[in-house]
Amino acid sequence: MLNVKTPEEVLRLIKSEFQALDTCETVPISEALGRVLTEDITADEYVPDFDRSTVDGYALRARDTFGCSDAAPAVLMFAGEVMMGSGARVSVEKDSCAYVPTGGAIPQGCDCVVMIEYTEDYGDGTVGILKPGAPGMNLIFRGDDVFPGKTVLKAGRVLAPQDIGALAAIGKWEVPVRPRLRVGVISTGDELVPANQKPGPGQVRNVNSPMLAALLTEHGAEAVDFGIVTDDEKLLWEKTRAATESCDAVILSGGSSAGVRDAACRIIDSLGELLLHGIAMKPGKPTILGKVGNKPLIGLPGHPVAAFFAAKLFVVPLLAQLEGRRQRSYPVKAKLGESLNANHGRMQISACRMESAGGELVAFPVHSKSGLITQLAGSDGFMMIGRDCEGAAKGSETDVYWS
Amino acid sequence: MLNVKTPEEVLRLIKSEFQALDTCETVPISEALGRVLTEDITADEYVPDFDRSTVDGYALRARDTFGCSDAAPAVLMFAGEVMMGSGARVSVEKDSCAYVPTGGAIPQGCDCVVMIEYTEDYGDGTVGILKPGAPGMNLIFRGDDVFPGKTVLKAGRVLAPQDIGALAAIGKWEVPVRPRLRVGVISTGDELVPANQKPGPGQVRNVNSPMLAALLTEHGAEAVDFGIVTDDEKLLWEKTRAATESCDAVILSGGSSAGVRDAACRIIDSLGELLLHGIAMKPGKPTILGKVGNKPLIGLPGHPVAAFFAAKLFVVPLLAQLEGRRQRSYPVKAKLGESLNANHGRMQISACRMESAGGELVAFPVHSKSGLITQLAGSDGFMMIGRDCEGAAKGSETDVYWS
Repeated sequence: MLNVKTPEEVLRLIKSEFQALDTCETVPISEALGRVLTEDITADEYVPDFDRSTVDGYALRARDTFGCSDAAPAVLMFAGEVMMGSGARVSVEKDSCAYVPTGGAIPQGCDCVVMIEYTEDYGDGTVGILKPGAPGMNLIFRGDDVFPGKTVLKAGRVLAPQDIGALAAIGKWEVPVRPRLRVGVISTGDELVPANQKPGPGQVRNVNSPMLAALLTEHGAEAVDFGIVTDDEKLLWEKTRAATESCDAVILSGGSSAGVRDAACRIIDSLGELLLHGIAMKPGKPTILGKVGNKPLIGLPGHPVAAFFAAKLFVVPLLAQLEGRRQRSYPVKAKLGESLNANHGRMQISACRMESAGGELVAFPVHSKSGLITQLAGSDGFMMIGRDCEGAAKGSETDVYWS
Repeated sequence: MLNVKTPEEVLRLIKSEFQALDTCETVPISEALGRVLTEDITADEYVPDFDRSTVDGYALRARDTFGCSDAAPAVLMFAGEVMMGSGARVSVEKDSCAYVPTGGAIPQGCDCVVMIEYTEDYGDGTVGILKPGAPGMNLIFRGDDVFPGKTVLKAGRVLAPQDIGALAAIGKWEVPVRPRLRVGVISTGDELVPANQKPGPGQVRNVNSPMLAALLTEHGAEAVDFGIVTDDEKLLWEKTRAATESCDAVILSGGSSAGVRDAACRIIDSLGELLLHGIAMKPGKPTILGKVGNKPLIGLPGHPVAAFFAAKLFVVPLLAQLEGRRQRSYPVKAKLGESLNANHGRMQISACRMESAGGELVAFPVHSKSGLITQLAGSDGFMMIGRDCEGAAKGSETDVYWS
């Protein structure tokens, strides 16, 4: 018997029932932003590839400058200049030095660089060093940063700009990533018309399909729009089966009535296995979940606000699970700008607007009576009030998830 | 005389020196995710467009049920059923009722809906109502959510999936947004080779161009790659002028040496106006900023870590300023997982990895000696240690910005 589950139970179910795909494709790093690495990335070269100066100055042997000072500079022979982009072609013997710009190669025999500020070019082929060097000073050695065999990024990482930079630095011009997930979106309901069509009497626009497509895009998946299906169970069954075959996951976004949800349950049961039948949250209770093989099939409520929150809470983790992605979605702490009532015996979700006041984040709950646009438009995030909590007072600290 | 400025001064300078563009294009909402609205969006219809039930139940006139109970149900004539997607064609007289599914239209004359749970169908054309209704119960009136003239989204909003849903609901199928910014990226330095090319002696791969392109993409801008320019001032001047002409903003990413930065300053000075000459932060000090007309021209340090932080701190706000975007980048509070030293007389930035432990975020500073890959790869965010602060102790609370 399938019972209504708590949101925490649903998240555990998602982790235990679905496995990461084993698909993989290779893309250039210029197209890899936001993609999920499928393998650890290990360097096969040194960074830097040569001993490099971290300052503009003179490369030399530290022992030739021990004891020098402003008053008694060490006087070294000027052996030449290292040019950027060429190796250290200068040869530096005992009691001599070479000019090296920041990032330039350190000539053989040198073990440190003294910053230009602490030197004086006498103009006669000698240079005065006013501060003693010390071995290793102002340089990084070959491989200090990375060496062959060092793991630079781990499988499951969602590639950010800083990772693209790191990959470029070690010459990983192409990387193995998870192919974009294809997620089918089916909206059902006799009352729905496409959002670009004027609704007739008793009709409403299909909000969920474009909203869910945007949410999927935001999370790196490709939304496959299967359009609107009227409340005809046979038709819905066929459309759902087709979507399940061609996609990695399918979202059914239900009509408002209980009948549609029951039909969705029967369809999931016939194509695969129904895993849950309702979630203890408000809004979002009539959310159902099943699987066909390793493919999740989730039925979201018809009300767009409920569908939105259920998608944020469960579709996003489902995508992460299929991609083998490490999640990085943490709440932020904010002060409640207004009191919030809750007393439902189930978790309550409220949309909020965020403001920053005196360096502190303040969350203002968006109130509305079954409002749709009012709840969604311009909201910055949402908060969850526990099932055993009767609400939260103005000024109290709360966890907010960005949306 | 241009002095080194603090990061706060630079942000104020960005706000005072650059204006939002007045360009605009119209895109379908299916392509509007992440784009910046250039006008307020005002509804020109009602949502809902008809009085709607929020439950499955019987629509009726509340006064016909006053005083009823389990023991003494009000017995009403069954007048018919409202179908989803059609108007309320049923006519409901005194002492009668009509079945309405969730989301269905309320028939004329009714002022409330009693949930199906509190009714009994006697099967003889009458329905027993076991709980009295009250005017307005379980329905939302036409325009309760949105009405013509109501502002739904404000100019400057970065469109999120919930906004796309709201726009779909009011039939705004196309919206006016800021055209994607075109940002030219020029890397300079004799030591640079393209990232997909094997560096020779003394050469390093061009990390900044692909990293900055990814960062620009992440923030909705289009990166225009002007490639690598060697340290030839004339060539750099020409390339910079060409980029300034064809782009909305230009990023010069300098070679490591002071000479390149001086050349960049002269070039900005000759094409427009130099606004600042160094920022009091570490890393990132050799960051310069100028403008040519309303176009920002920013010179980032050559070291990729410094370039990355300077881009996060200043390029992102520059883009927001040009787009007229309201920013929404707030730090999160985290516990420091390790002590962090700082004592530089200027603000210090440190990359960190984030972990969640016992419901608390913990930030681990990434240590490295001028490390490049080590600082960037796999880092989750960064923190800033104030110029007057000598560091932060393990366990202390710190603000972390996601990256």
